[in-house]
Amino acid sequence: MSKGITSRAEDYSQWYNDLVIKGGLADYSAVRGCMVIKPYGFALWENMRDVLDKMFKETGHQNAYFPLFVPKSLFEAEEKNAEGFAKECAVVTHYRLKSDPDNEGKLIVDPDAKLEEELVVRPTSEAIIWSTYKDWIQSYRDLPILVNQWANVVRWEMRTRLFLRTTEFLWQEGHTAHASSDEALEETRRMLDVYATFAEDYMALPVIKGIKSPAERFAGAEDTYCIEALMQDGKALQAGTSHFLGQNFAKAFDVKYLTKENKQEFVWATSWGVSTRLIGALVMAHSDDDGLILPPRIAPLQVVIIPIYKGDEQKKQVDAMATGILQQLRILNIRVKYDDNDNNRPGWKFAEYELKGVPVRVTLGVRDLEKGIAEIARRDTKEKTNFSLGTIAADIESLLIEIQQNIYNRARIYRQEYTTNADTWEDFERILNEKTGFVSAHWDGTSETETAIKEKTKASIRCIPLTNIMEEGKCILTGNPSSQRVLFARAY
Amino acid sequence: MSKGITSRAEDYSQWYNDLVIKGGLADYSAVRGCMVIKPYGFALWENMRDVLDKMFKETGHQNAYFPLFVPKSLFEAEEKNAEGFAKECAVVTHYRLKSDPDNEGKLIVDPDAKLEEELVVRPTSEAIIWSTYKDWIQSYRDLPILVNQWANVVRWEMRTRLFLRTTEFLWQEGHTAHASSDEALEETRRMLDVYATFAEDYMALPVIKGIKSPAERFAGAEDTYCIEALMQDGKALQAGTSHFLGQNFAKAFDVKYLTKENKQEFVWATSWGVSTRLIGALVMAHSDDDGLILPPRIAPLQVVIIPIYKGDEQKKQVDAMATGILQQLRILNIRVKYDDNDNNRPGWKFAEYELKGVPVRVTLGVRDLEKGIAEIARRDTKEKTNFSLGTIAADIESLLIEIQQNIYNRARIYRQEYTTNADTWEDFERILNEKTGFVSAHWDGTSETETAIKEKTKASIRCIPLTNIMEEGKCILTGNPSSQRVLFARAY
Repeated sequence: MSKGITSRAEDYSQWYNDLVIKGGLADYSAVRGCMVIKPYGFALWENMRDVLDKMFKETGHQNAYFPLFVPKSLFEAEEKNAEGFAKECAVVTHYRLKSDPDNEGKLIVDPDAKLEEELVVRPTSEAIIWSTYKDWIQSYRDLPILVNQWANVVRWEMRTRLFLRTTEFLWQEGHTAHASSDEALEETRRMLDVYATFAEDYMALPVIKGIKSPAERFAGAEDTYCIEALMQDGKALQAGTSHFLGQNFAKAFDVKYLTKENKQEFVWATSWGVSTRLIGALVMAHSDDDGLILPPRIAPLQVVIIPIYKGDEQKKQVDAMATGILQQLRILNIRVKYDDNDNNRPGWKFAEYELKGVPVRVTLGVRDLEKGIAEIARRDTKEKTNFSLGTIAADIESLLIEIQQNIYNRARIYRQEYTTNADTWEDFERILNEKTGFVSAHWDGTSETETAIKEKTKASIRCIPLTNIMEEGKCILTGNPSSQRVLFARAY
Repeated sequence: MSKGITSRAEDYSQWYNDLVIKGGLADYSAVRGCMVIKPYGFALWENMRDVLDKMFKETGHQNAYFPLFVPKSLFEAEEKNAEGFAKECAVVTHYRLKSDPDNEGKLIVDPDAKLEEELVVRPTSEAIIWSTYKDWIQSYRDLPILVNQWANVVRWEMRTRLFLRTTEFLWQEGHTAHASSDEALEETRRMLDVYATFAEDYMALPVIKGIKSPAERFAGAEDTYCIEALMQDGKALQAGTSHFLGQNFAKAFDVKYLTKENKQEFVWATSWGVSTRLIGALVMAHSDDDGLILPPRIAPLQVVIIPIYKGDEQKKQVDAMATGILQQLRILNIRVKYDDNDNNRPGWKFAEYELKGVPVRVTLGVRDLEKGIAEIARRDTKEKTNFSLGTIAADIESLLIEIQQNIYNRARIYRQEYTTNADTWEDFERILNEKTGFVSAHWDGTSETETAIKEKTKASIRCIPLTNIMEEGKCILTGNPSSQRVLFARAY
């Protein structure tokens, strides 16, 4: 039963939009470039957030909250950061509306309520946070500061796509302060590992850990570490970044600390973040032409039970069995729903939960009950099987684990298949155009070459993988010597 | 050992600020009227949020997320709401900064990036949400919609105070849509009950449930229900509101639904919210001149263990015992910390955790260990006692329950003492000026009288209590007939 989803082959981009909107994750809003995250999508985000939040706390971080607004004079203090974000800032200039004298019932901005200093709506919070850390840090005893914030941020994007690129998005941003460069670097890498573990173990999303080339660095960072994932159309997606900020923000905001040796030194910093963009990655990495495929560990609903019956008598029998199964599954902390809404037919429900990516569907029919079985359909492979009612809860628990693993394996095999070495420019271009995916190739390490490659092919350097093997080679474009391959791809 | 806290008698307002800032809850920021919520304050907010969120979900609500910005044309659609908030709106007028040609390294607002339509930073989200609900609601099958959002909002306040009144604050706002007036009213009252239960059972804050007089209603509501609490300086504080919005927003945004009888009707609405303001109420209701007193059920830290020792040998003995107690308490889900930081002396720690309002302090000294006991100090009464080490975890668990109850009882007795009937104008004024607190008095029901009383005394009608007994009387100001008393107070 079709829900009117465009197929990937037909129009990948429309397929993605159909899944997000018809799957109930999000929708466009009345505000240009901003989305509404609908209850089902938000429940998914809550699950992701809760896991990440626990991981942050287990690595010693605490949450805090800093202002939405950044006064312009603070915003411009770290010049590279300011330059990087200036072109996409929403700016508050006034603090009052008044009645429009020419238009009853309408409002206009009150020209008398112009701010002396404009406020930037945070595109990222380094500036406001480091202006605060100046008050928090005096001596080495005040370090490290390990703080995270869950917040909304605004970046004025010209072309927007639900979850992937929206003017406002939700994210977390960690901002830490350290007494040494080594400690800050260690933190940068620790949080990259947290992100990679989260992506792989919870989102079932295989990622490559790497370092960005200078051109792709976060504005104001000394080094940007990232995790990169591959989508089903062969394009890459940056799924999370962890920045080693050096002493750039400490210098911009004059944040020094007294060392144990009684000297004043600038503080070392990191920042790291993931956003609702991850939901876009999740959708594009796993789903199919029938709808979403959500990994069980973060799916809002892991199991749906659908009754098949005729008449009240059969309904009672099925209800009784469903109640028992519900109880057993809930004891196992499995998120389950019994959908006995009789406004919709079973076939409609099957399609609906397929669209929504619920990992396991249980169909309870009277004839099966008599045989002591129930039909189980798994969303990832669409295979159907019968489970004995006697062990159904434990069997579903195992199946959820298997599905999680299968979704991951599938994405990993896909990535292997779509990661290709290129040693000549012809190969490089052909792979990008025909096969797509990650292309591993030598690069001479200059920004000029990186830019030239991007202009010719629209592919960017996604990262220099942390696990790279050093090998002699020649730059794919210039033929200049190179000591390692880097990963190229077209990207979201 | 003093932490330099101003006493309540000396300067109540400064006492409050000292507690919030020195207690590590929040601080001023570089942005006018905005605060930084520090990790300890945010942990408190997380505990409050998690309890409320669970209560919302148990009453059938789901979370979602709507845009931060409201286009001016949507904002002004519900006229009363717009009029009520127009004077305190932060307005985004531009979407880009550029380099200042006259000032190297500085930025200016790019005049070429002026928005065609200004965006209001949400002071509340009825407008943006109801413009969305128009797309979500077609028929009675789409109702009710029971959605909540956790978000930041901005109201440009001229005089701000940490937590109590800040330009930006965090809150939750529920927005529900219903097929009938009765159902919407029921929801309005249900959520008021949720708030009252939360305030009393978790915050240990006795509240009066009531209805606002027309002058104190939320802009755009048909009726505003509220919970009102009494602070230690005899001033009232509105701790939460639940609004019956009638069909006002449905009419402003043309949101109709097809009834079962196939007729088009406007949808009925409620909205309800509590904010970080509750933290201000918590601080002012319970704390004393030595610092915060936090109710165990929401305290970030419920128990702190402080070792007393000389030398490594004693330290080892104390550590071993502390480890055991920590384990036992954690099994009971008690939030506990062992503070063996030897940069600070025990006396300093005692004062620090008193300031931070940790409900129970355990002091572990070698001499006590030999006797099989530990010294317990409770924060609420400052009483000290010895607990046997054999049963210490269970005894602490019971003590936390007792402390929670005691803090509540104390606040309740205080409120009883400071709720006074007044039957003459002279009494009314004298009570407000000398005794302070809630004054229960007759009012003739007119806005003119309400305004006149406020101008004369600075006291407002806090609410018409839901449990009011009807009785004949005469208005405290005009002498006109009245059928019930209402609660007056000066308020935050």
